[in-house]
Amino acid sequence: MAYKAPVRDYQFLIADVFKTDQYNNLKGFGDADSATVFAILEEAAKFTEEVVHPINITGDKEGCTLNPVTHEVTAPKGYREAYKALSEAGWTALSGDPAYGGQGLPHFVNTAFSEMLSGASSAFGMYPGLTEGAISALTAGGTQAQKDVYLPKLISGEWSGTMNLTEPHCGTDLGLLRSKAVPAADGSYRISGQKIWISAGEHDFTSNICHLVLARIEGAPEGVKGISLFMVPKFIPDADGNPGERNSLHCAGLEHKMGIHGNSTCVMVYEEAKGFLLGAPNEGLKIMFYMMNAARYGVGLQGLAIGHASYVAAAEFAKDRLQGRALTGPKSPEKPADSILVHPDVRRMLLESRALIEGGRAFLTWVALQADFQHAAEDEKDREKASDFMSLLTPVLKAYLTEKGLKVTQDAMQVHGGSGFTEHFPASQYMRDVRITLIYEGTNGVQALDLVGRKLPSKGGRAMQSFLGEIDAYIAAEEAGSAVPQYIKALKETKAKLMDGTMWLMQNGMGNPDNAAAGSLDYLNIFGLTCLSYMWAMMAKEAQAKIAEGSTDPFYASKLKVGRVFLERILPEADAHLAKMKGGAEAIMALEDELF
Amino acid sequence: MAYKAPVRDYQFLIADVFKTDQYNNLKGFGDADSATVFAILEEAAKFTEEVVHPINITGDKEGCTLNPVTHEVTAPKGYREAYKALSEAGWTALSGDPAYGGQGLPHFVNTAFSEMLSGASSAFGMYPGLTEGAISALTAGGTQAQKDVYLPKLISGEWSGTMNLTEPHCGTDLGLLRSKAVPAADGSYRISGQKIWISAGEHDFTSNICHLVLARIEGAPEGVKGISLFMVPKFIPDADGNPGERNSLHCAGLEHKMGIHGNSTCVMVYEEAKGFLLGAPNEGLKIMFYMMNAARYGVGLQGLAIGHASYVAAAEFAKDRLQGRALTGPKSPEKPADSILVHPDVRRMLLESRALIEGGRAFLTWVALQADFQHAAEDEKDREKASDFMSLLTPVLKAYLTEKGLKVTQDAMQVHGGSGFTEHFPASQYMRDVRITLIYEGTNGVQALDLVGRKLPSKGGRAMQSFLGEIDAYIAAEEAGSAVPQYIKALKETKAKLMDGTMWLMQNGMGNPDNAAAGSLDYLNIFGLTCLSYMWAMMAKEAQAKIAEGSTDPFYASKLKVGRVFLERILPEADAHLAKMKGGAEAIMALEDELF
Repeated sequence: MAYKAPVRDYQFLIADVFKTDQYNNLKGFGDADSATVFAILEEAAKFTEEVVHPINITGDKEGCTLNPVTHEVTAPKGYREAYKALSEAGWTALSGDPAYGGQGLPHFVNTAFSEMLSGASSAFGMYPGLTEGAISALTAGGTQAQKDVYLPKLISGEWSGTMNLTEPHCGTDLGLLRSKAVPAADGSYRISGQKIWISAGEHDFTSNICHLVLARIEGAPEGVKGISLFMVPKFIPDADGNPGERNSLHCAGLEHKMGIHGNSTCVMVYEEAKGFLLGAPNEGLKIMFYMMNAARYGVGLQGLAIGHASYVAAAEFAKDRLQGRALTGPKSPEKPADSILVHPDVRRMLLESRALIEGGRAFLTWVALQADFQHAAEDEKDREKASDFMSLLTPVLKAYLTEKGLKVTQDAMQVHGGSGFTEHFPASQYMRDVRITLIYEGTNGVQALDLVGRKLPSKGGRAMQSFLGEIDAYIAAEEAGSAVPQYIKALKETKAKLMDGTMWLMQNGMGNPDNAAAGSLDYLNIFGLTCLSYMWAMMAKEAQAKIAEGSTDPFYASKLKVGRVFLERILPEADAHLAKMKGGAEAIMALEDELF
Repeated sequence: MAYKAPVRDYQFLIADVFKTDQYNNLKGFGDADSATVFAILEEAAKFTEEVVHPINITGDKEGCTLNPVTHEVTAPKGYREAYKALSEAGWTALSGDPAYGGQGLPHFVNTAFSEMLSGASSAFGMYPGLTEGAISALTAGGTQAQKDVYLPKLISGEWSGTMNLTEPHCGTDLGLLRSKAVPAADGSYRISGQKIWISAGEHDFTSNICHLVLARIEGAPEGVKGISLFMVPKFIPDADGNPGERNSLHCAGLEHKMGIHGNSTCVMVYEEAKGFLLGAPNEGLKIMFYMMNAARYGVGLQGLAIGHASYVAAAEFAKDRLQGRALTGPKSPEKPADSILVHPDVRRMLLESRALIEGGRAFLTWVALQADFQHAAEDEKDREKASDFMSLLTPVLKAYLTEKGLKVTQDAMQVHGGSGFTEHFPASQYMRDVRITLIYEGTNGVQALDLVGRKLPSKGGRAMQSFLGEIDAYIAAEEAGSAVPQYIKALKETKAKLMDGTMWLMQNGMGNPDNAAAGSLDYLNIFGLTCLSYMWAMMAKEAQAKIAEGSTDPFYASKLKVGRVFLERILPEADAHLAKMKGGAEAIMALEDELF
């Protein structure tokens, strides 16, 4: 039941599919030639398999403990040591800005590492994950002085970060938030309020914890227009930038959750705590969204990562478990029974999982490259296009990969049979852990609404046109003489369904936004299927090319076998989603509230 | 977050849809006129809401405790008292044979009660549930003397029952089982072996626990042909039928599980325990299947019941939670925000849940009526037909209702947002509890294989032909002048897809059984959709008729609104399942074992 990092799959994506060496003229990519990246990934695999994964199951059973007197939180045994190893080995600094001590490697490298980290232990992976979000927000909104104080320590992992949005009465609807900020004479603010569900809000790994807190400055406008963002460190940095005075904030409680027990999910109380404004007053949400978008990407990644880990455990179980005989006659007559891998339904579950995970991993990597291009591309048009893709695809990636991550963990449990329901095998933990990914950083319903209500119409639909243009150009370039025509055909058909859904939204959603919202998650699923069709077309092409070149590496043949499962058993869902969304809002809105 | 029993829905099914009073000439139905049944259901609702549900959440948190010295198991606080109330009020005896102290009411009455019991607390409901299985097996295979000793005490709830099939190395593949039975001089047997996952295997409610144990008599043939069934009571009944000598069996461990914590899931050890053969030697599986079929029905019911309970909690949460505003303008401008029920995606989840639950409940009730007819119908042809339906539809009911039960609990959690992932709300428990229903009593994959491999071809396809004939006759009778033509059309179309899938299986599954198995779960889903289409057609007709008659009860209008959601948002899945199953086995079987 060990975790196995998907090194080979990343090698394929990096070298064969996306051929990242072609970008070695771009900033950051020069130090990331594929040989270097492969070496990093080998190390990443070793680290996550050997150092991180062993504390995953024990961390689930032990959970975090809050000392009610000191308000200090103790993470599960081994977390502190693993975190120390993580930061000392430089893993937290992979994509950090070299100006602040980071290694400046492209995002796609960090994505590969992060998948391994989250897959080996999602609860543990959240600690550095939240810090990455804090780095995004500071980079986007901090003053030079703030960057100088905080970024080096966050990038090195010496300090960690958190996101403080939710309050007991408001999560999605931040306009309702009540935490207050009162200006102080020294230019700082006094922050008061209660925040809930603060992941990594308090722990015993780092010498400081930097809370990014949304609050309302006294006298600010009501609703979302009056929200500001503050850096509220646990220890206020002294003149030398070292942790100084203890700030007046504390963890008042730990959430009792279904999963991710190893992560401390805190109720945080701020009592006139010293906070420093990030960006302009009342414009906190704008900066917080940098952090939020990074976090949404990270959550989609987490869904996929846990899916991969649960697949690995299920495949191993299936190979070992002897039960029944193949329908076509015994496969291992010398044994008391065949392994359950002979059963088509077991293979179906495992192969559908592979089709989703491998397609999803390519999507994740491709979007990470867009994150790189939006800053590093030489041409402004290219930067704009990449930025448009990021913005358009972040909700798709978050919601689709987490929904499918859940499906994969469900199937992994099902492969385990009764054993899966016991806590002796890891299937239950993976399922309990992955479940939050459909919820936090905006539920998948909120992602779908963001997609249809905000991202599609934004800038006259520029991002969507650009995305469709990319797919069309790919089809046009590949269609004639393709060695994998079935994938091109599938991409063409799926993209046509996406177009169909988009047209329906334009015709029916403008006049009545409920129509768009009622079908938004179905539409998002068609979007996800289109993205994965694109990825599979690219992957199949390269795998087929390697085989044509004479490669006998079974990896390439496997890739095509899994790809066929994607075409035959995943893609048929697009029609159902399209039919459902076209039902519109009428039936959905008809029932009176009191009759629910 | 209270549980609300679906009394009104059962009244509708019993009086309006299935009109059970028309069967008052049949055995058992005479005492079950709808007025009487309604009174029973009102009491059942009171009992399950007020006595059973309060121990559900506490039971989850507390779990069961094994005393390692005495091997006794203590169930969570309140379970013992609730069980006492349950048996004293006669709930365990509802459908029991009057010859042994039962009330002899039809199965459909017991089904309604059982859904309420499982919905109020599925972990608690399993204790009497397992006893029902033991009653089926004894009724089918016990001698008169055995029936006289055990049935009255099991029916009254004074004693309880268990099923002992699984051993550490074998679950689905019972041919591998190793538990041994050695004949003793007194005609009994000495049973030795270890059984795992024995629900309700040991507890502190009843003065005796009757274990039905599969074992192999010394010298019996290998495989499934050498398996016998034994009654192995915890206390051996004395000459008066009272618990006598303590048998040499004990609970050696409790399983640590993801859910149903209130149920004791035991490792049972038999050390030359005294057992009494049930039925003929080596024919134990035949009798065990009576128990198993009852149990499979019970598990489908449990999936639905937990789904209903989680819907109730989610609907209540949605009405209370204020967050954001309706897309079409504020609905409650006087409040700081609208309830989340204004959001189409939230309503979609709740209404899809309703469409599945209400359709599933009708299906459950209709199948319960078949269970009654197979014994009580006057005409032999009718008994045969009902028996065929039971046999054909049990795997469909088990797998489809549990899969959809899981979907409903997932959506209920999603409606809760972040709150759903915490253990302060019941969503997590419902999801953790329902998950086992897809696994135990034969995983859903095993159900699908049973359907396509055994039930469809059985007796030259007689049951399937009979089922299709019933649907055709209904369509023929209703089509012209139907007041709900859209439902008739939907039934016709879905049934056509079922036919299409069945033909595909015949053409492709005979030569290569892997083809049938690879698509079996998709086929089962089309089957489930056909059954629910049939139920919705009947329900819509009666609801429409009541409205036409001038009823202003909002129940009827709601029924049609929910039915429309079934047509528009659930049925489109049939095509996707059909397309997937037609992919066949080739892609599924292609990957080499070592490459998983």
